[in-house]
Amino acid sequence: MTFTQTDRTKLKRLPKRGHFDRETVYGILDEGFICHVGFAPEGQPFVVPTGYARVDDKLYIHGSQASRMLRSLSGGVDACVTVTIIDGLVLARSAFHHSMNYRSVMVFGRATLIEDREEKMAALLALSEHIIRGRWAEVREPTEQEMKMTTVLSLPLVEASAKVRTGPPLDDEEDYAMEVWAGVIPLRLEAGEPIADPRLAENITVPAYARDYKR
Amino acid sequence: MTFTQTDRTKLKRLPKRGHFDRETVYGILDEGFICHVGFAPEGQPFVVPTGYARVDDKLYIHGSQASRMLRSLSGGVDACVTVTIIDGLVLARSAFHHSMNYRSVMVFGRATLIEDREEKMAALLALSEHIIRGRWAEVREPTEQEMKMTTVLSLPLVEASAKVRTGPPLDDEEDYAMEVWAGVIPLRLEAGEPIADPRLAENITVPAYARDYKR
Repeated sequence: MTFTQTDRTKLKRLPKRGHFDRETVYGILDEGFICHVGFAPEGQPFVVPTGYARVDDKLYIHGSQASRMLRSLSGGVDACVTVTIIDGLVLARSAFHHSMNYRSVMVFGRATLIEDREEKMAALLALSEHIIRGRWAEVREPTEQEMKMTTVLSLPLVEASAKVRTGPPLDDEEDYAMEVWAGVIPLRLEAGEPIADPRLAENITVPAYARDYKR
Repeated sequence: MTFTQTDRTKLKRLPKRGHFDRETVYGILDEGFICHVGFAPEGQPFVVPTGYARVDDKLYIHGSQASRMLRSLSGGVDACVTVTIIDGLVLARSAFHHSMNYRSVMVFGRATLIEDREEKMAALLALSEHIIRGRWAEVREPTEQEMKMTTVLSLPLVEASAKVRTGPPLDDEEDYAMEVWAGVIPLRLEAGEPIADPRLAENITVPAYARDYKR
């Protein structure tokens, strides 16, 4: 099933980089875990990084009840949520054809506040599991007071698109004879050795989901 | 020297995470290389990922002359440019106190189009060198036609702020007794083995700046 292209999601340039199938869009959303949320109260744009999770055809974001972003968005204003994964630097023979390999998704829509307790708890679980699977079951669940202090918003995945670049550089034909290295430097987010909290009891070992963390 | 706080850059929550000194703001801008640019023509927000470079008190972004973002921004509308570096996942004992270690910068302002040829070439060089130092000297410089096809914008670094979280989780006092691992999973962007362009001549070796790429 694919997303219908709209004026907001249509790619004006390089249309072959555009993808509108849910498989591609959801694959990127499920691999990333930080989005940049754009909103523009009174025409002034703000771009705020935050965690997110996808469940079926909804995108959840959350944060403090006091957050300017969440208060603004829960008023039902237009939002643009962008997720970007950088896969590599593309080194061409000309400065002009340098590029990056990346996968990005843009979602347009209006968020709604989740007020139902059960749906809110399920969304918080999804937000946690999306970032680190297996963690939720081991930690203390939110209290009623913490639930009240947390705002969770849901954005319908109705108007969305992906943009993807892969592969080697594309140079002008006459530049291929140049004596300069060309290719791709792959980039990826890697997890290092977990650092125990200084207050952690010595007998508590690192769980596998933290030791082998991967995205 | 510090940035003057404004209504747009002031942190309403967790003010101790805010930094307004140029050293911190510029350190983050110089380590990152992807920004998310927010703009809102007719009130509709867009958030677009792109490369950037800082030179002194200016931030440069560039792209195709045909880009909707660059055409919109060169009209002098309000922009918000955000750079985010994720340093780690912070695993607390309660779901509520989970967090991330990160360093982010938000820049507000209006961009101007660079029309002077010399300044434009210097900005393109800076954009290239910011992403991969040493590359510019080896590749073919932009032709006049390529220069015409490229738009470069400059955003003054006048209204900017950084937000930084570091260190271990901060749990509620009564949760420290829980038998669950807590600490930080460090995350960083790592470069892999460079992949040669399939059309690269065999005698051309990988330059050090690509083999040992680091941010």
